[in-house]
Amino acid sequence: MPGTSGRHYIDRVNSPEDLRKLTGEELRAYCGELRDFIIERVASNPGHLGSNLGVVELAAAIHYVYDTPYDQVVWDVGHQAYAHKIITGRKDRFDTNRKLGGISGFPCRAESRYDAFGTGHSSTSVSAALGLAVASRLRGEKRHAVAVIGDGALTGGLAFEGLNHAGAENADLLVILNDNRMSIDKNVGALKEYLLQITTSWRYNKLKADVWQGMERFPRLRRLFQKFGNSLKSGLLQQSNLFEALNFRYFGPVDGNDVEALTRVLNDLKGIGGPKLLHVLTVKGHGYRPAEENPSIWHAPGRFNPETGERLTGGEENRPPKYQDVFGETLVELARQNPRIVGVTPAMPSGCSLYMLMEAMPERAFDVGIAEGHAATFSAGMAAEGLLPFCNIYSSFMQRAYDNVIHDAALQRLDVTFCLDRAGIVGEDGATHQGVFDIAFFRTIPDITIAAPMNETELRNLMYTAQQGGHGVFVIRYPRGRGVTADWRRPFETITVGKGRLLREGRDVAVLSLGHPGNFAAEAAARAEAEGISVEHIDLRFAKPLDEELLHRVGRKFRRVVTVEDGAVHGGAGSAVLEFFNANGYDCRVTMLGVPDRFVPHGTPAELHRMCGYDAEGIYRALRQAYEETTKNA
Amino acid sequence: MPGTSGRHYIDRVNSPEDLRKLTGEELRAYCGELRDFIIERVASNPGHLGSNLGVVELAAAIHYVYDTPYDQVVWDVGHQAYAHKIITGRKDRFDTNRKLGGISGFPCRAESRYDAFGTGHSSTSVSAALGLAVASRLRGEKRHAVAVIGDGALTGGLAFEGLNHAGAENADLLVILNDNRMSIDKNVGALKEYLLQITTSWRYNKLKADVWQGMERFPRLRRLFQKFGNSLKSGLLQQSNLFEALNFRYFGPVDGNDVEALTRVLNDLKGIGGPKLLHVLTVKGHGYRPAEENPSIWHAPGRFNPETGERLTGGEENRPPKYQDVFGETLVELARQNPRIVGVTPAMPSGCSLYMLMEAMPERAFDVGIAEGHAATFSAGMAAEGLLPFCNIYSSFMQRAYDNVIHDAALQRLDVTFCLDRAGIVGEDGATHQGVFDIAFFRTIPDITIAAPMNETELRNLMYTAQQGGHGVFVIRYPRGRGVTADWRRPFETITVGKGRLLREGRDVAVLSLGHPGNFAAEAAARAEAEGISVEHIDLRFAKPLDEELLHRVGRKFRRVVTVEDGAVHGGAGSAVLEFFNANGYDCRVTMLGVPDRFVPHGTPAELHRMCGYDAEGIYRALRQAYEETTKNA
Repeated sequence: MPGTSGRHYIDRVNSPEDLRKLTGEELRAYCGELRDFIIERVASNPGHLGSNLGVVELAAAIHYVYDTPYDQVVWDVGHQAYAHKIITGRKDRFDTNRKLGGISGFPCRAESRYDAFGTGHSSTSVSAALGLAVASRLRGEKRHAVAVIGDGALTGGLAFEGLNHAGAENADLLVILNDNRMSIDKNVGALKEYLLQITTSWRYNKLKADVWQGMERFPRLRRLFQKFGNSLKSGLLQQSNLFEALNFRYFGPVDGNDVEALTRVLNDLKGIGGPKLLHVLTVKGHGYRPAEENPSIWHAPGRFNPETGERLTGGEENRPPKYQDVFGETLVELARQNPRIVGVTPAMPSGCSLYMLMEAMPERAFDVGIAEGHAATFSAGMAAEGLLPFCNIYSSFMQRAYDNVIHDAALQRLDVTFCLDRAGIVGEDGATHQGVFDIAFFRTIPDITIAAPMNETELRNLMYTAQQGGHGVFVIRYPRGRGVTADWRRPFETITVGKGRLLREGRDVAVLSLGHPGNFAAEAAARAEAEGISVEHIDLRFAKPLDEELLHRVGRKFRRVVTVEDGAVHGGAGSAVLEFFNANGYDCRVTMLGVPDRFVPHGTPAELHRMCGYDAEGIYRALRQAYEETTKNA
Repeated sequence: MPGTSGRHYIDRVNSPEDLRKLTGEELRAYCGELRDFIIERVASNPGHLGSNLGVVELAAAIHYVYDTPYDQVVWDVGHQAYAHKIITGRKDRFDTNRKLGGISGFPCRAESRYDAFGTGHSSTSVSAALGLAVASRLRGEKRHAVAVIGDGALTGGLAFEGLNHAGAENADLLVILNDNRMSIDKNVGALKEYLLQITTSWRYNKLKADVWQGMERFPRLRRLFQKFGNSLKSGLLQQSNLFEALNFRYFGPVDGNDVEALTRVLNDLKGIGGPKLLHVLTVKGHGYRPAEENPSIWHAPGRFNPETGERLTGGEENRPPKYQDVFGETLVELARQNPRIVGVTPAMPSGCSLYMLMEAMPERAFDVGIAEGHAATFSAGMAAEGLLPFCNIYSSFMQRAYDNVIHDAALQRLDVTFCLDRAGIVGEDGATHQGVFDIAFFRTIPDITIAAPMNETELRNLMYTAQQGGHGVFVIRYPRGRGVTADWRRPFETITVGKGRLLREGRDVAVLSLGHPGNFAAEAAARAEAEGISVEHIDLRFAKPLDEELLHRVGRKFRRVVTVEDGAVHGGAGSAVLEFFNANGYDCRVTMLGVPDRFVPHGTPAELHRMCGYDAEGIYRALRQAYEETTKNA
């Protein structure tokens, strides 16, 4: 249990140099304290827990053995880098983790010279670390490059592309496979079975361990082995493995929560050049029983009592639901009525609540692993056979399936509904995870429908509309977090594609909103109205196709318009409205509110909406200014 | 040699049903005639040759054995589908291949019910065919799904994602690995070596062949094997392979140019359920010696004399160079001066002319295989270590590396120069290959520079500017084909980022062009001027950042502006100009010329530019109309 092991070492270690002064036994004690430190801090300042507890020993061993920051470590995904951050000088700022102005929850080059490469999205580490290694080689440096990648991230095709290239380059690259059998949820796919098979094959492991142990006593044999042997392939075991097929030397599996074993094996590996893979077995949530027992929930548990493991959620009952649960429940409801519906998620069954369909109709719901591109193309394949896939991909991860949507779905006008959870500002996960580009990157594609609900009922009705089929690619984007309607289970209604809603009639200025910021706009309009400015409010609902009838009305009636969207303004929905006014000859100036032309850091969504200027206050100010300009020019 | 085998069978076969009436011997003769037919037609109507000649027998065997179109075949990439198209009723239209209004050079669902899934980009077939297979299973159908994928396409991460998922689904899916050791150029990477190792391992092959042959005589053993054996893994050979690791049953390798052997093995495989992979060895260009001897050149050779193998290029000497060669030569020139420069291509060394750097400085040029995402992230990794990568990716394939550019390069402000060859309309390759979305999908990303040269000298100077570093992500897009300047090797000049060029001063209307269509605009402006309309012509050069000084000048001076770009107008450069005018309060209406909001089919670039309305004639008309509106309103 946390707090019991004292703080003898953690106070002394403020850098990897400090760490390297510890003895093996002290290092083990330090790891215990570091684990407690993380538990305590994350209990009160929420963040990722399970993945971070799993790699405490790994992070310590790497910094103990390698000469960081000269040697370079890339943490795949990066939500498991807390121990790394604490070891590398960010212990005292750790209570600012994920807060506005504080340290990032992910490795970040701008934050520390120990963060060799920024991460956030999955499966990039092999490619990035290979780039670092090749560059070092070209520059005549002798530094080591290490990529730490989970078994979940390994299912992403990018990791395979990196391995395939690395196996053919003779760069000094160590890939550490951090195998905990989990993504955020349980890992899936054939590779997972294969890794399990490797690690449970007695004969294989026993022989490998024997050979490795045996060699410790025969340095010459080991050197020979290092020089000629492609790991244990060449006849020793009569068994090649997948990584050896890609020309990596395979080592392991070793217990990744045993810091002394890890430092030993890493020290050995430092002397071996070329591409090599160390298979490390860790336990997600290691050392904290609640997290070990329920790793999905404790991936990012929110606030909790570190002593009791009680999660401090509180008062959820009467709040509006999360959008993700509205998606999950509605999909089950629709799938019961329509046998053509199937659901697809790339490794986010809890995150997007597809688990509900997976439980209700397991044969019609597919968790395809961390593989966004495949999720989209696989969905298109099912649509080509007449099914109606709902493929749920977070907006920022949709950037990884962009070509698949264009080339495999849209170009063939296949009925795939892409539900973009976490669209818009996501908050504490920061710049890598903000889902702000999708409106612009999808709007330029022909034959795509882009919709965004303003509330839960709208989300349900958009899903109901999409599953009627015949629309081609139908994108529904909705935000992270909770909606606005406690009483959201209403009978379904079909929404006409490309039809917005006139929410409030007005005379002076118009505000056109897309999606949930319509609620901010409604508040702003009410406030303006109270101050004598008559505001017309339209919920666009669709960024594509636009509601031309409503826009003609606005174009004829107003000289000043404010648009609001939870996305990048350059090329976004406001830009689409502007293109419409321009094409139709309306002299109507548009104040485009949304995410400005810069990357948005971490903070709470409310802080970031305000910072970007499209919270209710920002919209109100824009309406007032637009009104003042109209009256001035009139 | 073509033409010698007569046309006894090809005239008789107009559908797979006709094909299935042939005897084994007749089928072999038919394949010979089909090969000659393809050679003859492609000689006079250019298209892909080598890949098509390699799979004549494979296409025939598949349609002979499987009940197409009920059974479904997905041709990965799809440029090897000519035999398939000719067998499935498109023989008589084959002379319209790749022509405007004719049949597509790729499989296309809208074209034929035999084209189960449209392709064009690489590595999609496993995911798509798995989607078809799973959908069939859910609908209670007994149809077979077959994916034909090359060893080059297999290096794409998407294929791996598909295999990983397929290995865990019990769907009836056959993946045929068409192994010819080539992408367009020689295949690269560790996987290639591994496939070679499988196919040349005497012991493995011999044993496999023996086992397979042996089983033919023992149907009960074979059934047992089919039921329990995971291919040859379970102890038979003490050797697992990469595909078996992913839970595929592995069969092969077999001679893919022996149609009778193929029909035998496919017939056997039809009886085996679940995921299985057949490894087929083919020769690119098979049966046509020039194409066998130089497969890169004969991938898509242009016109040629089928008898002599002489390529009918003719009169190239005094024409302006191809943009790709300007890139290739300039990169070598710059790399000689700047040791930090490296070059990266995902499997297009000939196509983008990176082969020049690969020959001149092999240690600084990287062909990473068909792996666009990795190419971008690997480049970002090298940039993080201070190198200056030039990563060349065709515009339409850049859609596959979108997140890598955002997440790994732009977000970290790393100096990676992305050169987008084939940007804009590419012509005969059609809808899948038109590179028209990049301006819009990149413009919405912060901290990116997007430039497009109007001619060869500008391309050189943009590259010269980019390699000075400090700009972050620097995108240079240029078109397929030839430039406009024979005398293009001029001394380098730095271009100020975000500065356009005033090419012609005028009074009545302005035309703002981006990239090579500036040449069309110059022609149009000259014509308008001759007819008394005074046109100001600005070469924007940069879609981002915009030249605000020039745009303020335009905004102050003109009420009507025409923008021209070789890309989608929605969200593109014209849209950026419009946003600028709106933000700065200029009442300036913009006629945005470029690719309208629909997918553009195949045809010559000139035909398609005209169709989209931004050839010189289209621009002229837009200028005239804008002028007339100005005078009417004045």
